[in-house]
Order: sequence, then structure tokens, then C-alpha cells
Amino acid sequence: MKLYNYFRSSASFRVRIALELKGLPYEYLPVHLVKGEHKQPGYGAVSPSGLVPTLVNDSGEHLGQSLAIMEYLDETHPRPPLLPADPVGRAKVRALAQLVACEIHPLNNLRVLKYLVRELKLDEERKNAWYRHWVREGLELYERELAQLPSSTYSFGDTPTLADCCLVPQIFNGMRFNTSFDGLTRTMAAYEACMKHPAFQQAQPSSCPDNEA
Amino acid sequence: MKLYNYFRSSASFRVRIALELKGLPYEYLPVHLVKGEHKQPGYGAVSPSGLVPTLVNDSGEHLGQSLAIMEYLDETHPRPPLLPADPVGRAKVRALAQLVACEIHPLNNLRVLKYLVRELKLDEERKNAWYRHWVREGLELYERELAQLPSSTYSFGDTPTLADCCLVPQIFNGMRFNTSFDGLTRTMAAYEACMKHPAFQQAQPSSCPDNEA
Repeated sequence: MKLYNYFRSSASFRVRIALELKGLPYEYLPVHLVKGEHKQPGYGAVSPSGLVPTLVNDSGEHLGQSLAIMEYLDETHPRPPLLPADPVGRAKVRALAQLVACEIHPLNNLRVLKYLVRELKLDEERKNAWYRHWVREGLELYERELAQLPSSTYSFGDTPTLADCCLVPQIFNGMRFNTSFDGLTRTMAAYEACMKHPAFQQAQPSSCPDNEA
Repeated sequence: MKLYNYFRSSASFRVRIALELKGLPYEYLPVHLVKGEHKQPGYGAVSPSGLVPTLVNDSGEHLGQSLAIMEYLDETHPRPPLLPADPVGRAKVRALAQLVACEIHPLNNLRVLKYLVRELKLDEERKNAWYRHWVREGLELYERELAQLPSSTYSFGDTPTLADCCLVPQIFNGMRFNTSFDGLTRTMAAYEACMKHPAFQQAQPSSCPDNEA
């Protein structure tokens, strides 16, 4: 398999974690988002919508959208599972993942930040306040959801799930913008547990070949 | 089953379509978002994160996030299916659904529009321009993805899928803000096909008991 991705892209990071958790080797193909490489004609042939990440499977099928890619990996390589076995558990893990992927991250991706600066003329400080606002507000919702669940090592249960694959990149992004994580006890405990796991370490931006830090 | 929802909420509309497609009866429990009923303590007991929709299943489990709820319905009531049988087809349908649910809709939900007005002091015209920008840009990506697929009645294949459950509410929202749909040939053909289907008609805002139009 091949993964078109970018070291700092949160959605790319999610898929890298899933690949590492399942022990699946892949070819890392960097797409430099800040340089606009995803908008070049060459990348249009990889992804019609020009979005990152794109997974190319061994049959040459191109698959987009990080949550869809992770579900695909879980269906085609079921061990270890990224979702519980029972439908209610699966729904709860997916809801946590989507709390990040549908409520937090979309507000803070690169094209939105560009719109804030170019079209709405926000200065750096107000742009960063926007960023932190949505991360903090979203993670407070995440914390409230975790508070309803039995205690566990990771977000849901004692093995990493799709929820953790989404949470960890979001925490990384929040850190870059100095978001406060105060009081997010269970959320940050799940994050800390993940960061002790080799799959999350291997997938993190600083381990990527295109890392610039 | 019970569904806490709001006639005009796009995420609620998605789940209503899925319930109608599967012919599942449910109790409709309205939560008036514009009046802030989702922030009242009573609703906090329904949904810790205070988000709409929430499905309560027959065992009393509370499930949030529209995509997760629809996957749950598909797993527990498989006929008719909302996803193809093969993993690549499933990944493609999920990616289309997420193109709406992760790239378009989050930018235009009520709390974001409120932030634009209250914090960023955008006037009505600039707020509406923001709205239309993300709907139009996102649907152009959707159209490009459809253009890569074999011709079909709906977004993917000749029966409605999770992708259509997300697309139709997004088109409704775009219409409310006078978004241009020019040139979105396949996307709008899928929308038109859906609107001839009784499940989509039954689920639409004007058919809801809390409809105010």
C-alpha cells in the first residue's frame, strides 16, 4: 500500500496510527500542503478532490477521507480491531472519533485558516484564538462523553481504537497553538497512554520522513 | 427507538432519512436548537456533549453523531443496506458521506455562524458569503469524486446510500442560503433522484412535526 500524506496533517496522522497499530507496511509519499502540492495537476490524478491523505491499496484503488480509510483497513485487516465487536460499542467509538473529525478538526484545517486571514482579514492573534476556541470547546465535549464511560486506559476500553487515532493528532495540533488542556483529565490520560504505545510514536510527525521540525 | 432532533438540523435530517429508508418507526422528540434547548440541563442528561441528534435505542442506550448512528442502524437493521457489500465500495461511499460531514457541514453549523457574528462581528452578507463559499467549494469536490465513478442513479449505484443521506440535507442547507449549484451535474442528478424517493420526502424538514416553515 501507498499513503499520500503530510507529516503535519492531522487526518494523515490518524491513518498512519491505524497502519502502525495493524503492523501494515506502506510506502510514504509526501504531499507538501503548505507549498500547495495537493493542488498541482499531478495530485489531481491521485485524488480528484485534492485532499490528503489518499491510500492506494494493492489493487491500485485510491481511497480518500481518513475515517473511511481507517474503516477500510479495519475491514480488510481485522487484527487488532480498531472498533469493539458489539454494535453499541462500535457506535460509541465512532461517535468519539467523529466528535474530533466532524466537530473540531474541520474548523481548523489549512484552507479555513487561510480564509480567515485572506478573506476576513483576521490578524495572527484572532486567528489563533479561533483555533484554540474550537479545540478547547470540542475537547470539553469529548471529556464529557468519556465521563459517561467506564474507566479505561484509552478513550474506550483497554486497547487503542478509532477514537484514539483521531484524538492524538488533535491534541498535537492543539499543543502547536498553545491550547489549554486543563481539567481534561480522562482525555489527557488517554492521550498519555497512547503516547507510550509504539504505534503512536512511530506515526507521529517527528517520526515522518518529510518532518521539518 | 426515539430520536432527539430538530427539523432544520442537517445531521438530524441524515438520520431521519436512514430510519425511513429502513422502514424503522421512531418517536420524534424535537429539540429547538435556535432556542438553545440543547444547552438546557434536561438535554445534558440525554447527550453529555449537548449535540443533536441523539438516538435512544430499545435498550435505552444513547447514541450520538449522525454518521455513527447511521452505521449503527445499518449494522443492526441490515436491509436495505446503506453501504455496498465490498470493502472498496464501502470506503468510497463513506468517503463521499464524509466529504459532506467533515469538509462542508461543520463550517456552517449554528455555533460557527454565531461565532462569526458575535466574535468576528461579521455582518449578514459576509456571514452568508462564508456559508456559500464552503458549500459550493465542498460540492465541487463531491462532483469531482462522482465524475470518477460509473454512471448511477444515486451518488453511488442505483440504491440510496450513506452518501445520499448526507448529500440531500446539505443541498437543502445550500438552497436556504442561495448557493449556486450550476455545473454540479451528477451531484444534482443524485439529489433529484433522492427527492423522488418516499424516504427522503418523509424525512425532509417540511414533513417534520416541529417544522416552522
